[in-house]
Amino acid sequence: MSQRNSLYVAVIGGYDCTPQQALLAEEVGERLAQAGAILVTGGRRGVSEAACKGAKRCGGMTIGILPSSDYREANPYVDHAICSGIGEARNTIIVMTADGIIAFPGKFGTLSEMAFALLEKKPVVSLGSWDVSPLVTKVDSPQEAVEKILQEIRR
Amino acid sequence: MSQRNSLYVAVIGGYDCTPQQALLAEEVGERLAQAGAILVTGGRRGVSEAACKGAKRCGGMTIGILPSSDYREANPYVDHAICSGIGEARNTIIVMTADGIIAFPGKFGTLSEMAFALLEKKPVVSLGSWDVSPLVTKVDSPQEAVEKILQEIRR
Amino acid sequence: MSQRNSLYVAVIGGYDCTPQQALLAEEVGERLAQAGAILVTGGRRGVSEAACKGAKRCGGMTIGILPSSDYREANPYVDHAICSGIGEARNTIIVMTADGIIAFPGKFGTLSEMAFALLEKKPVVSLGSWDVSPLVTKVDSPQEAVEKILQEIRR
Amino acid sequence: MSQRNSLYVAVIGGYDCTPQQALLAEEVGERLAQAGAILVTGGRRGVSEAACKGAKRCGGMTIGILPSSDYREANPYVDHAICSGIGEARNTIIVMTADGIIAFPGKFGTLSEMAFALLEKKPVVSLGSWDVSPLVTKVDSPQEAVEKILQEIRR
Repeated sequence: MSQRNSLYVAVIGGYDCTPQQALLAEEVGERLAQAGAILVTGGRRGVSEAACKGAKRCGGMTIGILPSSDYREANPYVDHAICSGIGEARNTIIVMTADGIIAFPGKFGTLSEMAFALLEKKPVVSLGSWDVSPLVTKVDSPQEAVEKILQEIRR
Repeated sequence: MSQRNSLYVAVIGGYDCTPQQALLAEEVGERLAQAGAILVTGGRRGVSEAACKGAKRCGGMTIGILPSSDYREANPYVDHAICSGIGEARNTIIVMTADGIIAFPGKFGTLSEMAFALLEKKPVVSLGSWDVSPLVTKVDSPQEAVEKILQEIRR
Repeated sequence: MSQRNSLYVAVIGGYDCTPQQALLAEEVGERLAQAGAILVTGGRRGVSEAACKGAKRCGGMTIGILPSSDYREANPYVDHAICSGIGEARNTIIVMTADGIIAFPGKFGTLSEMAFALLEKKPVVSLGSWDVSPLVTKVDSPQEAVEKILQEIRR
Repeated sequence: MSQRNSLYVAVIGGYDCTPQQALLAEEVGERLAQAGAILVTGGRRGVSEAACKGAKRCGGMTIGILPSSDYREANPYVDHAICSGIGEARNTIIVMTADGIIAFPGKFGTLSEMAFALLEKKPVVSLGSWDVSPLVTKVDSPQEAVEKILQEIRR
């Protein structure tokens, strides 16, 4: 179990996402905030922005780990923009900073993050994302996603 | 001037530091917190720990950007540990995430951070640190360090 | 088509591999060397070592991009060890340095490399590796793997 | 003493350099090649390009570690372009890959590389570069630079 005061949960997914995915990501953000978890994302638009928006609506804290060195790339719901300056290699930092990951549908950047999370033995919950390993827990709703990831982190 | 809600100031310096340097770093942390600035450090001991301790005493927010992937390396006064996993190359992230830097005495890691800060054209204030460029503003006290760095960031 | 004098092909796969996979990787290394391609790997054991061994047997050139800062981690068939010091984030450098990728079976590190390769729009050929995208060309033999990757790079 | 077949020497210095500095860097490249050492640089123009040009004139081998993911950024005298994709953080990889460093005049990027080299306890020889530490050996000519760095690496 984590010694941290709060749990850190990364929400990953497409830079472009559908309105429906955005609604689900917002709800995940809300529920993480309500549970007192801190949200980690890649800090830009799409699933990241929706999750951050939801988290802020419920008074949560959001950290965005950007590929570039320019904090203005962060979406407006990011509390703390970390300017990595290392490009896509920053995907590893999102994963390493989080205690667990909730994955939405996304392209190959999302897949790389799931792969790194599994490599680092972090729990991963998927809400319609890549089906790459039985180690990933599939869920059907934002509520289940948040419940499961917090359970798996605390286990 | 920064568009951020808060200014981010990195405090850098030795991993090992003297008790006197620690007291000065604590006061810098306190004054940054009182000014509403967010403290960015390498997240471990020495000057970083002292500055974080001071910031927390005054209700400030502290971010520690660790070289490893293990958040337990963070000192107890770090609110948010960013686990970079990229080793000493994370020095660039400390600099890129901050709007300005206050440098304490330190060894070559501190020098590398000052060099990156100057490369990235970030303001740097030195409280007894490396004397490498007239672009670095030398100051004599924690009060002056915090006043100057906030002025230079806002300029 | 590449403007380089030589093509750079990454061979990726398990850090632990079966003797049969090692034989196939050796043959891939031999064939790449015979075709004048330069071999890029993660520089350590398993599939990387077998491919480097095959390449050196045929007078090829091998580059190993290591996670650590210690060149002694490289297998004995690496001509040039690049000491990244950035840990698993170096997987992105293997991909970015190569013009195309041949993927052997491997665990999540291999999957992360395939994901990065697809993200960077590099051609990827799979010899029994992860089945993650129709963009990956499946092949059945080392000969076909080398023929296809060189064709796809030159296209 | 290094267990490698060849010694790896990084030549660092300004992205913009004077014609006189370029001539000195070419001579350093020539002498390193004649001594059988492999040249590591940042792979772009200025001191890096001049050193690579000199090395190739004498049949040496040159490795360029680029900040971007685009090998076309390499100067024409780079044999192997490593595409890091991690921006200025790649300065650490230049240093970690080399057994020793020869520093020419340069700006803050050069200073950051000297700092990292000293942090990593690599020998550093300076031909008119930053005067930051008595650990750096000052030399007056390309001949002395190459002699001293090879001596210090082998010590």
